[in-house]
Amino acid sequence: MSSFGPAGSVRRHETAGHMVMHRLDELAQFSAEHDALTRLYLTVELKAAALQTQAWMHAAGMVAYIDAVGNVVGRYDGRGPGLPAVILGSHIDTVRNAGKYDGCFGVIAAIQAVAALHEANERLPFAIEVVAFGDEEGVRFPIALTGSRAVAGLFDPNALDAKDSDGITLREALQQFGCNPLEIPEIPRRRDQVLAYCELHIEQGPVLEAEGLPVGIVTAISGASRFTIEVDGVAGHAGTVPMNLRRDALCAAAEMVLEVERTAKQTKDLIATVGRVDVLPGAVNVIPSGTRFTLDIRSPSDGVRLAAVARLTKAFEQTAKERNVPMRMQKSYEEAAATCHPNLIEQLSAAVERTGFSPRRLPSGAGHDGLAMVALCPISMLFVRCKEGISHNPAESMTTEDADIAVRVLVDFLRHFLSPAVAAH
Amino acid sequence: MSSFGPAGSVRRHETAGHMVMHRLDELAQFSAEHDALTRLYLTVELKAAALQTQAWMHAAGMVAYIDAVGNVVGRYDGRGPGLPAVILGSHIDTVRNAGKYDGCFGVIAAIQAVAALHEANERLPFAIEVVAFGDEEGVRFPIALTGSRAVAGLFDPNALDAKDSDGITLREALQQFGCNPLEIPEIPRRRDQVLAYCELHIEQGPVLEAEGLPVGIVTAISGASRFTIEVDGVAGHAGTVPMNLRRDALCAAAEMVLEVERTAKQTKDLIATVGRVDVLPGAVNVIPSGTRFTLDIRSPSDGVRLAAVARLTKAFEQTAKERNVPMRMQKSYEEAAATCHPNLIEQLSAAVERTGFSPRRLPSGAGHDGLAMVALCPISMLFVRCKEGISHNPAESMTTEDADIAVRVLVDFLRHFLSPAVAAH
Repeated sequence: MSSFGPAGSVRRHETAGHMVMHRLDELAQFSAEHDALTRLYLTVELKAAALQTQAWMHAAGMVAYIDAVGNVVGRYDGRGPGLPAVILGSHIDTVRNAGKYDGCFGVIAAIQAVAALHEANERLPFAIEVVAFGDEEGVRFPIALTGSRAVAGLFDPNALDAKDSDGITLREALQQFGCNPLEIPEIPRRRDQVLAYCELHIEQGPVLEAEGLPVGIVTAISGASRFTIEVDGVAGHAGTVPMNLRRDALCAAAEMVLEVERTAKQTKDLIATVGRVDVLPGAVNVIPSGTRFTLDIRSPSDGVRLAAVARLTKAFEQTAKERNVPMRMQKSYEEAAATCHPNLIEQLSAAVERTGFSPRRLPSGAGHDGLAMVALCPISMLFVRCKEGISHNPAESMTTEDADIAVRVLVDFLRHFLSPAVAAH
Repeated sequence: MSSFGPAGSVRRHETAGHMVMHRLDELAQFSAEHDALTRLYLTVELKAAALQTQAWMHAAGMVAYIDAVGNVVGRYDGRGPGLPAVILGSHIDTVRNAGKYDGCFGVIAAIQAVAALHEANERLPFAIEVVAFGDEEGVRFPIALTGSRAVAGLFDPNALDAKDSDGITLREALQQFGCNPLEIPEIPRRRDQVLAYCELHIEQGPVLEAEGLPVGIVTAISGASRFTIEVDGVAGHAGTVPMNLRRDALCAAAEMVLEVERTAKQTKDLIATVGRVDVLPGAVNVIPSGTRFTLDIRSPSDGVRLAAVARLTKAFEQTAKERNVPMRMQKSYEEAAATCHPNLIEQLSAAVERTGFSPRRLPSGAGHDGLAMVALCPISMLFVRCKEGISHNPAESMTTEDADIAVRVLVDFLRHFLSPAVAAH
């Protein structure tokens, strides 16, 4: 079933990459929609995907079950029972109208890596657990990372009262899914039973493609701050109010948008985006009385991010003052950066080099389950090149060759793995 | 009934201003809505307002009728029958959720001016016609200035097939209103029967209020160009695409918005507004793939306006090129400026001075019936201060004192009026 196991185990002319891509196509059939992929947390389509994933885990030699928050957990024991585990994983929920690779690739690739060991009758000096998290995207309920937060011991029981847009609580949805919310406190792993977390994921960005590399090693999952900025201008007839008597909320916002871009371009390891702008009243012949826009600002360094927020806040206040348009800036989200463990970065880099590629390191601007898992254990991530950096979109795409390379790197990483706790001593 | 006629005719302690404001309140009752003023062209509420206006014309000593496009026309003969006329007027249709003064003030003030002459048994060496145009705003049908275009001989018979949002044609609506569309060709005035057009209107801008003046003399109704500009960027994940690989449609548009403001501020007699902005896809964590915005640009000088359009087009193209984001600019509207007759400006200025005020001259950024009437005869406009420049809004407001001053200026203007054709020789 794989091209990288001992010669005797290659039963078909099919690479691990082919198998992974085939299964990703299969998994994409479990959707709420006929002609698009939408698989939200605790839906019937997620249940179907979870059962299929469990079956693939079984086939790869793992013991597998669905836990009390809907994660699918497969365990491949090491050279003896009860050994501490390396956790591999990602998520199998999706955004609406999603691509096939975000999340799912990391789960299927991890199962494929275990299958390779299993077929080679290889047991390692540690256990491997593959976890297919049930909720990373946070689309259905106003919470996110529910799966990994439960495993890391960060699940907040108040979240059980969170409601989806139909008014169904998380508690009710869990019960409908077949989970017992009372068992959630049993999910968190003991720290001494987990050696590391390693996730494979499509890059969701253009860097690897631009540099012609199939994979890259993540240095950190960037921290992010999000704000909503509201600027109050004064409406007026576009034909009658002279320029010097205007207090135009849009012109002020345009200055702020360009200051965001300027700050991000001038600052190393910082990206910032204004993605949404609403202008009031929004008529061709009325001077804007209000503008509301969002700011998303990220950095692998929390210090860099917070300094940029401070600089932008000051610049926005200055613009508001100069133009006599009151401005309010409200934080809607903040997440600290999660740094990948330096020793795991080294081990992944070595695996990439042994597989024959240059070990490009890059931050992850997007959020991932590692943001929660870092509370439990050292984390690491391997990025895989995707087409044009597109994600959260049906056009999301990656190649069979890259999938194959990524699985080969992961198997190599596992075969050479040393616990960072041990490696550091 | 008026404070400015000969002493003997003052029957109440009520000024012309009081009478005008009272009638404007009465007229505002004719509305499609209970708690807001909306009176569109050829509706039953416009018919009621037209009949009320006709009755007030009769009371002011005029012969009055409703013409074939729904204008109410009142004639106050001069010292003999059949003399050429000065046309006074404005419109009695409104926008949705309108104020009470836009349009209606000019009609009611004109009737009040004629009433003053009538009460004083004064006949002038020319006739006066007051026209309450039925459609200036152009809200119901995709045409505007229907009333004044008919009087000026600019009515396009194809407009009879224009449909409102219920699919009713202008032809059908005219018939329902009691008009005979076949008689429209009889509406246009002969040029030798019209000496001038003079309209009173609220300023709809803040200039007079800012300068503490009750009235101002309009120099020209600004010409206007409107465009829709579309910028195509490339969407991307706000967390993963480095700044140097972005083609952000919003940042490009923000530069263009500021260039619009800069151009207008640097150019005499030019104002320009971006009133509407739509950003695609419009999500906090997605780099904008598209931005569409409107541009409204006005000047009393067509040359100034067209030069600014050329400058902005070039600047937009430059920004689009530098940022590698294709840009399209589509004209949606264009109207040349209508210049007020220099001699009428002089005569109105003299009347303002005789009434005791400084004769401030200013352009009209908003469109008015003069845009059509200028095809028929010399035009002029007197602006009246309104509160905070607000119009097209229930908060539209003006004072009784200013209404009184405006009527006094108009009566004085009429008493001293000389045909510009004669005055020029």
